Amino acid sequence: MDNYEKDPGRRALQTRDFLLSFQHAISATERCPIPVIAAIHGAAIGLAVDIATACDIRYAASNSSFSVKEVDIGLAADIGTLARLPKVTGNQSLVQELAYTSRNFGASEAKEIGLISKIVEGGREEVVKAALETAKVIATKSPIAVVGTKRVLLHSRDHSVADNLEYVASWNGAMLQTADLKSSVQAALAKKKASYPPLGKHFSKL
Amino acid sequence: MDNYEKDPGRRALQTRDFLLSFQHAISATERCPIPVIAAIHGAAIGLAVDIATACDIRYAASNSSFSVKEVDIGLAADIGTLARLPKVTGNQSLVQELAYTSRNFGASEAKEIGLISKIVEGGREEVVKAALETAKVIATKSPIAVVGTKRVLLHSRDHSVADNLEYVASWNGAMLQTADLKSSVQAALAKKKASYPPLGKHFSKL
Amino acid sequence: MDNYEKDPGRRALQTRDFLLSFQHAISATERCPIPVIAAIHGAAIGLAVDIATACDIRYAASNSSFSVKEVDIGLAADIGTLARLPKVTGNQSLVQELAYTSRNFGASEAKEIGLISKIVEGGREEVVKAALETAKVIATKSPIAVVGTKRVLLHSRDHSVADNLEYVASWNGAMLQTADLKSSVQAALAKKKASYPPLGKHFSKL
Amino acid sequence: MDNYEKDPGRRALQTRDFLLSFQHAISATERCPIPVIAAIHGAAIGLAVDIATACDIRYAASNSSFSVKEVDIGLAADIGTLARLPKVTGNQSLVQELAYTSRNFGASEAKEIGLISKIVEGGREEVVKAALETAKVIATKSPIAVVGTKRVLLHSRDHSVADNLEYVASWNGAMLQTADLKSSVQAALAKKKASYPPLGKHFSKL
Amino acid sequence: MDNYEKDPGRRALQTRDFLLSFQHAISATERCPIPVIAAIHGAAIGLAVDIATACDIRYAASNSSFSVKEVDIGLAADIGTLARLPKVTGNQSLVQELAYTSRNFGASEAKEIGLISKIVEGGREEVVKAALETAKVIATKSPIAVVGTKRVLLHSRDHSVADNLEYVASWNGAMLQTADLKSSVQAALAKKKASYPPLGKHFSKL
Amino acid sequence: MDNYEKDPGRRALQTRDFLLSFQHAISATERCPIPVIAAIHGAAIGLAVDIATACDIRYAASNSSFSVKEVDIGLAADIGTLARLPKVTGNQSLVQELAYTSRNFGASEAKEIGLISKIVEGGREEVVKAALETAKVIATKSPIAVVGTKRVLLHSRDHSVADNLEYVASWNGAMLQTADLKSSVQAALAKKKASYPPLGKHFSKL
Repeated sequence: MDNYEKDPGRRALQTRDFLLSFQHAISATERCPIPVIAAIHGAAIGLAVDIATACDIRYAASNSSFSVKEVDIGLAADIGTLARLPKVTGNQSLVQELAYTSRNFGASEAKEIGLISKIVEGGREEVVKAALETAKVIATKSPIAVVGTKRVLLHSRDHSVADNLEYVASWNGAMLQTADLKSSVQAALAKKKASYPPLGKHFSKL
Repeated sequence: MDNYEKDPGRRALQTRDFLLSFQHAISATERCPIPVIAAIHGAAIGLAVDIATACDIRYAASNSSFSVKEVDIGLAADIGTLARLPKVTGNQSLVQELAYTSRNFGASEAKEIGLISKIVEGGREEVVKAALETAKVIATKSPIAVVGTKRVLLHSRDHSVADNLEYVASWNGAMLQTADLKSSVQAALAKKKASYPPLGKHFSKL
Repeated sequence: MDNYEKDPGRRALQTRDFLLSFQHAISATERCPIPVIAAIHGAAIGLAVDIATACDIRYAASNSSFSVKEVDIGLAADIGTLARLPKVTGNQSLVQELAYTSRNFGASEAKEIGLISKIVEGGREEVVKAALETAKVIATKSPIAVVGTKRVLLHSRDHSVADNLEYVASWNGAMLQTADLKSSVQAALAKKKASYPPLGKHFSKL
Repeated sequence: MDNYEKDPGRRALQTRDFLLSFQHAISATERCPIPVIAAIHGAAIGLAVDIATACDIRYAASNSSFSVKEVDIGLAADIGTLARLPKVTGNQSLVQELAYTSRNFGASEAKEIGLISKIVEGGREEVVKAALETAKVIATKSPIAVVGTKRVLLHSRDHSVADNLEYVASWNGAMLQTADLKSSVQAALAKKKASYPPLGKHFSKL
Repeated sequence: MDNYEKDPGRRALQTRDFLLSFQHAISATERCPIPVIAAIHGAAIGLAVDIATACDIRYAASNSSFSVKEVDIGLAADIGTLARLPKVTGNQSLVQELAYTSRNFGASEAKEIGLISKIVEGGREEVVKAALETAKVIATKSPIAVVGTKRVLLHSRDHSVADNLEYVASWNGAMLQTADLKSSVQAALAKKKASYPPLGKHFSKL
Repeated sequence: MDNYEKDPGRRALQTRDFLLSFQHAISATERCPIPVIAAIHGAAIGLAVDIATACDIRYAASNSSFSVKEVDIGLAADIGTLARLPKVTGNQSLVQELAYTSRNFGASEAKEIGLISKIVEGGREEVVKAALETAKVIATKSPIAVVGTKRVLLHSRDHSVADNLEYVASWNGAMLQTADLKSSVQAALAKKKASYPPLGKHFSKL
C-alpha cells in the first residue's frame, strides 16, 4: 500500500471496490440460471449466511448452527446478508435481533423464521442427500420453465406486482413458443416422463 | 391464424397481449374495492393459486391440496403466482421449492408458509361458512374504513414505508371528513352497532 | 377553526399536515440510530401497534392482547401500521384479516404472524426485563457495527437487493476504517470483552 | 345523487373513481401499440395538453396557443399533464411557471421547452400534413421494430437504466427471431423498400 | 472534538448527520407549500446552485454567473445540486461538464440547459421585480389549486407516470370538493377576478 | 448451432444472454470511475449512439451525422440507446421521432435536443482536441471529488431526490476526510494549482 493509499477517501474507494467484487463472487449462485440448493450443516457463520441467502432453496441438517457474526467483528454485514435475509424470511423482529446480537440459532429457529424450508435429521451426508433428491426432481422439469421461474421470481423480489405481471407476460411471449410445452403435455397424456433437450452451449448466465 | 402470425416476433406480441388480458381478468379481485376472501377446498392447482393469491384473505379447508403446477406444463407461471406468492408469504426457500418442483402441499404447509391464515376442518361447505362469517364481520364496519384499508395495503405492498406514510396522510385528508367517524364513535359510546350508508351507485373499482 | 377552514379542500390539507406531523413523532424510534426494543404487555390497541411496528425488535408478554383497531373508529390506520405491518410479518392473509376485522389477537398469534420475536411469560415486569437483557447484549457491541446494521436494514426494506448491495459497499468503505475492528479482533483473540468509545456528542439521528 | 353520496368521504371515492376512468380514456394513445402523433393547432387548453403529452410525437402549427389552464378553474391538473409534462420536456422551471400561472404560450416557447419537436408554418391543414408525412415514414418500418421501440421507451421513462437494459434484452430475445430482420437486410442490400406483414388480427394493445 | 471522535468511522457518522441537517435546511423551499421563485443575480456559486435548484421557478438577471464549485474544493456537491440539477434540466452532457470542471457559465447558458426559465436584463432589482410579478400572478389563483399542483409535480419527479396518475386521482378526490372551484367558475363567467380564502392557520408544510 | 438450439425458447434465452454481455461491454464507460468524453465526428450510426449515450460528456464535430438506425434493421435498439437517450436529453417528442424514423440528424439538432453539449467546428481532429482540453481541466481536479461526482450523478439518474440526498450524505461521510480538501483550500489561498495523489493501484471500477 503506497502512502497516499492511507488517505481515508482513497481507502474508502478501494474498500468499496473490493466489497463490490466480493459481493459479485458470492452472488454467483443468483446469476446461475438453474436453481441452487444450499445444503447447510455444522456451523454456518457470517459469510456462510451471506452465501446461503444468495441461494434459491435452503435445507439445513439438524446439527446446523447459524450466526450473523459480523457485528462481533465490528462491522455491518456487507456481502449480502442484510440485503437478502429480510426478503427471504417472515419475522423482521427476529432478523434484527439476530443481526444485532450475533447470537447462535439452530435449525428449528431458522425454520421458524423462514430462512430454511427443511430440517434434515443428521449432518452433512443427510442434508446433501436431501438437497440432491430435490435437485433431481427439478432436473426432470423443462429447463425453459425452470430458468424462467427463477428469473421471474428474482424480478418479483425487487419490483411491484404490476411491474412483474407485465414482465412475465413479455417473457412468456417468447417462452411459450418452446417445444417443451408440447413435450410436457404429450408426456402427461401418455403418463410418461417427458424428456427435454439442454439449453444450449452458449447459455451461461441469468 | 394467418400464415404471418406464425412469425416468432408476431406470435410473441400476440401471446403477450393475451396474457395481459388474462392477468387483468384474474386480478379483478384486487381491483374490487371490498376485500375478497378465498375459500379454498379440494385441489387448488395452477390457476387456482393465481386466483387465490390475488384475493385479500385466504382460508383453506383441511381437505385442500395445492400445487404451483405450471413448471410441469413447461412454463413459468404467468398469471400472478410468481408476482404475488413471494409477497404474501414468509419463507422464500419453500416458495421456490414449490415453484420448481410442482409438488403437492396441504393446508398445514400452506399455513406454515403464510399462504393461508386459517385451516377449516372439513371441505367446501365448512370453509365457505368460515369465510362468510369473516365477511359478515367486515360488512359491519365503515365501508370508508375498509376500502381505504384495502387501497393503502395494496399501495404498501409496492412502495417504500416513507412513500406509503405520505400516501395514507393524503388519503385520509379526505376520508377523515366522513360522517362514519362520528357514527362509529357514537355507536361505541352507546354500546350499539353503528350503521353506515353504502358507498354510492357510481363507485365501482379500486 | 375559522369558517373557511371548514372548506373540504382546506380541511383535507390541514388534516394531512397534522397526520404527517403525527407520523413523524411516532417514527422517532426509526430515526433513532440505536435499535429500539418494544416491550409489549397488556392491551396494545391501535396506536400501540403503530408504535410497535416502528421499533426494531418486538417482545410481548404472554398477557398481551393486540388489535388493529382503526377500522372500528371508521378510518384506515394512518400512523404507520399499514405501512410497516406487512413488511415485518410473513402472512399477509392474516395481516389483512386483522386489519379489516379489528379483532383481538394474543401473543401467540402475534408470534405466528412474525409480528413479535419472543413471548415472555408474565406481564410488564417480565417483558421489560427480557428486553433489557437483549439491550445489554447489543450495548456490548461496536456502536459503529450496530448503527450501520440498523441503517442498512432500513435501506434494505425499501430498496432492491442490487441497490442495497451497492449501498452497503459504499457505507462500509468508510466504516471499515474504524478502530472498532481492531479492538474487536484483539478482544476475540485475547478472549476478553472488547470496549468501544461512544459515537460522539454531535451524533443524533439516523 | 343520493343524500349519503354527499358525505365527503364517499364523494372523494366517487370522484377518484371517475378520475381514474377519465385518465384511462385519455391514456388510450399510450396503450396504442403504434406511435401516435399529435398535430396541434389553434388553442390547446387544459385537456388538450393532457392528451398531447400522452401522445408519442408532438407537432404544432405556428398558430398554436397552449395553456395548462387547470389552476384557473381551481384545481391541480389531474388527467395526465402533471404526470407527463415534466418527463417529456427539459426546463422544469418553465414547466412549473406555466402550471402555476396558466398563462398562454405559443409554439416557439413549446419548442424551446421541448414539448413539441416541430413547428409547422400554418394551421390545421399544414400540421396534419406534416404529421401524416412522418406517420407514413414510420409505416414503412418493421412493425415489430416500431412496437418494440415504443414499448421499451415507455419502460425506460419509468425505470432505471439497469432495469431497462435487462428488459430490452429479454424483449429482444423473442423479437430478434422475427423474419422482419431478414427482410430488412435483404431489402437494404437490394436497395429496395422492405415490405412487412401486419401484426395480426389478435393484437390490440401495448 | 473528543479524541475518539477522530476515529474515521465515528467522523463519517457525524459528518453524515451534519450533512443531512444541512440538506434539510436547504430543502425548506421544497417543503414550503407555496411555490418559491429564485431571483438569481451576480455570482451564484456552489451553495447558491443547491438553493436555486431546490426552488420551483428560477429567474436570472443578465449579470448572473453560475458555478458548480464543489469539485474545486475537493468534494462532490452534497447539499442538493447533484440530486436536482439533472432532474430540472435537459442536457445531461452539459450538466456533467459543468459539475466536473467547475467552470463559470452565464445566464444564457443556464437558460439553454433549462436551469432557468427567464433572463431578466439587469441585476438584483430587475430580477426581483420580475419574480415578484410572477408571484403576484400566482397569488391570484386558488391556493388549493396551487398547493396541489406543487405537491403533485414533486411526486411526479420521483415516481412513474402510472403511480402519479393514481396519486393525483386520490388527491383530487378531496380537493375537487373545495368551494374554490365554484368561485373560479363564477368569477370566470362574470369576467371578474375570483377571490379565495387563505389555507388556514394550521397549515404549515407540504 | 445444435438442432435443439433452434427451439424458439432456447434461442430467446441465448440471444438474451448475448445481449446482456454486449450491453455490459458497451456500458464499460459508465463503470469507468473517471468521466469519459465522447468526441463524435462523421457518421454516428446505431451502435455509435449506444456508445455515446453511455459516456458522460458528448462533444460533436460540425461534420457529425447521427442516426438511431436500429428500426431500419427491424429491431428496437437494445444496447443502451432506448435506456439512456431519453434520460440525457430534453425533448422526448424528438427522441421518439428519431427512434421511429431512423432519420439522420446533424450536430445542431443533436445540440438542440440536449444530446451533445458542444459543437466543434471541423472534424475528428478538432473535436478530439476539444475533448482533450476538457479532459485536461478535469484531470487537474481532486480525483476524490471527480469520482464521487460521477458516482452520485449516476445514482441521481436512477433514484428519487430524497434517496439521492441520503446517499450523497453517506458517501461524503467518508470522502470529506480526504486530504484533498485541505490541499484544495491551501492551493486556493496560495493562488496556486493544487496537486493530488492518484487513487491507488487497487481501484478499478465505479
